[in-house]
Amino acid sequence: MNFKEELLNAHKRILPYIHQTPVLTSHLLNDLAGAELFFKCENFQKMGAFKMRGAANAILQLSGAQKLKGVVTHSSGNFAQAVSLAAKSCGIKAYIVMPKNAPKVKKEAVIGYGGIVIESESTPVAREQKAEEVVNETGATFIHPSNDIPVIIGQGTATMELLNLHPNLNFVLAPVGGGGLIAGTALAAHYFGKNCQTIAGEPLKVNDAYRSFKSGVIESNESTNTIADGLRTQLGTNNFPIIQKYVSDIICVSEPEIIEAMKLIWERLKIVVEPSSAVAFAAVLHDKIRFKNKKIGIILSGGNVDLANLPF
Amino acid sequence: MNFKEELLNAHKRILPYIHQTPVLTSHLLNDLAGAELFFKCENFQKMGAFKMRGAANAILQLSGAQKLKGVVTHSSGNFAQAVSLAAKSCGIKAYIVMPKNAPKVKKEAVIGYGGIVIESESTPVAREQKAEEVVNETGATFIHPSNDIPVIIGQGTATMELLNLHPNLNFVLAPVGGGGLIAGTALAAHYFGKNCQTIAGEPLKVNDAYRSFKSGVIESNESTNTIADGLRTQLGTNNFPIIQKYVSDIICVSEPEIIEAMKLIWERLKIVVEPSSAVAFAAVLHDKIRFKNKKIGIILSGGNVDLANLPF
Repeated sequence: MNFKEELLNAHKRILPYIHQTPVLTSHLLNDLAGAELFFKCENFQKMGAFKMRGAANAILQLSGAQKLKGVVTHSSGNFAQAVSLAAKSCGIKAYIVMPKNAPKVKKEAVIGYGGIVIESESTPVAREQKAEEVVNETGATFIHPSNDIPVIIGQGTATMELLNLHPNLNFVLAPVGGGGLIAGTALAAHYFGKNCQTIAGEPLKVNDAYRSFKSGVIESNESTNTIADGLRTQLGTNNFPIIQKYVSDIICVSEPEIIEAMKLIWERLKIVVEPSSAVAFAAVLHDKIRFKNKKIGIILSGGNVDLANLPF
Repeated sequence: MNFKEELLNAHKRILPYIHQTPVLTSHLLNDLAGAELFFKCENFQKMGAFKMRGAANAILQLSGAQKLKGVVTHSSGNFAQAVSLAAKSCGIKAYIVMPKNAPKVKKEAVIGYGGIVIESESTPVAREQKAEEVVNETGATFIHPSNDIPVIIGQGTATMELLNLHPNLNFVLAPVGGGGLIAGTALAAHYFGKNCQTIAGEPLKVNDAYRSFKSGVIESNESTNTIADGLRTQLGTNNFPIIQKYVSDIICVSEPEIIEAMKLIWERLKIVVEPSSAVAFAAVLHDKIRFKNKKIGIILSGGNVDLANLPF
């Protein structure tokens, strides 16, 4: 597959369906980090997260026959909303498998974007089975939140936009959870940067990607006990080889480091980002020596937070 | 005084010292309000609030002899930081009279921007006396946070920028506290809008401006018990006549209305604004019938909040 061409085509394809989000800077945060930081604000993306890019890119490539039957995914987070909104924008149905015990507010958000909520038991296996059932019953096309190539490519377009504005970045950092964003980011940095290294930030408490990166096989997490709720998932068979090939390193950060980075972003950039978004910035602060005086792009992945449940 | 010319000159004068802040929109908030909303994001202004505009405009008009002796103001809020930063940008001294019991974080912020903190007792009278003492001792020029004409004119430049992008606004709304922002806003709307009405939002609990507007004399507040901590002050002799002449109405909003409006801005625009900033949007939601289908500019005045002390 010609990833460079795929990325270029994806960006053209999704442009009418996404925001070209702004890039923010802060003298104070630069001073604090000892580096020059460029924050790519996907919290301002449609539905509030980068996931819109990958969902739109996957849905827009369906055939007419596939579009008639709709799409299905399992997610209780941003990808559920992204698929719902992207499908609605294309006039097609979106079936979203969500665990019975998912918060009401998340189900309502999906319904608000036009998605059809299908309840399942809450185990990963039960959710996958239910999604399969929906595929069999409706003929809808299954879209994986982080492991489908069109999704991975779509997520990479955020970094393309960032490099278009700031072509000389030395590093681009993004959080790693399921692996779709970091794989897309790494491809974009490889094909559109000038020796731009991609580094992932990961919560120490769910550092399956770090361990996978070291061991060479996809590892799992035993607990999901991190505030960065978007990063509790594990890598997939499609994105892992891309990560192995194109990501330079994965930096693990503690929960207090994530919260401190999130607080700095809120206080200094005056923007609302979700905890997962703060992980990449936390990684920069964790390893200041490596990043000293470098130009660094940071993907702020999303801004969908529960204000009633903040860590400060 | 030719206010139109003053506004134009002020904008040119301060442009190297301020950010031309972005204007954000949201389909969802438009639907909720039943109107077309344009949020002027002064939370992204230097030091985090519109106050930078007025402080810069006042300081930049000082004579060379005045600049040598510096400036003095009394404020424990955004104006203290604004004067400190604007003075620093011009290479002059700023003496900031702050109550002894002001939070340490606020004193540190002023010092961080290069201001010299002078402590006083916490009553308004003691603060004014201390400022007078500093004037007598140092020869510094006193700048009032909301009642000096150059400050009022400087604050109006936010609305000039907004109308430059969106010339056909039917209304522009801003919060009213000391009266500097709303007076400047009203002048800008009068001279640069097309029949653009200026309306103030004010917390019901400190509605001195509303009562002054109705009675024709400057009224005071008996309590300062509102979450909108930037709006506890009262009108001044210079801004009140401007408000009487150019402001169409003042809408009072309750504390729950302010908190709800603030929450909507955080959740939907993904930006951090201080409670005072939410008052103008709360006023739009308070009187939906008046604003139905209108184009409305809303000045989001600032983003300096204490994250450890949020209302949700």
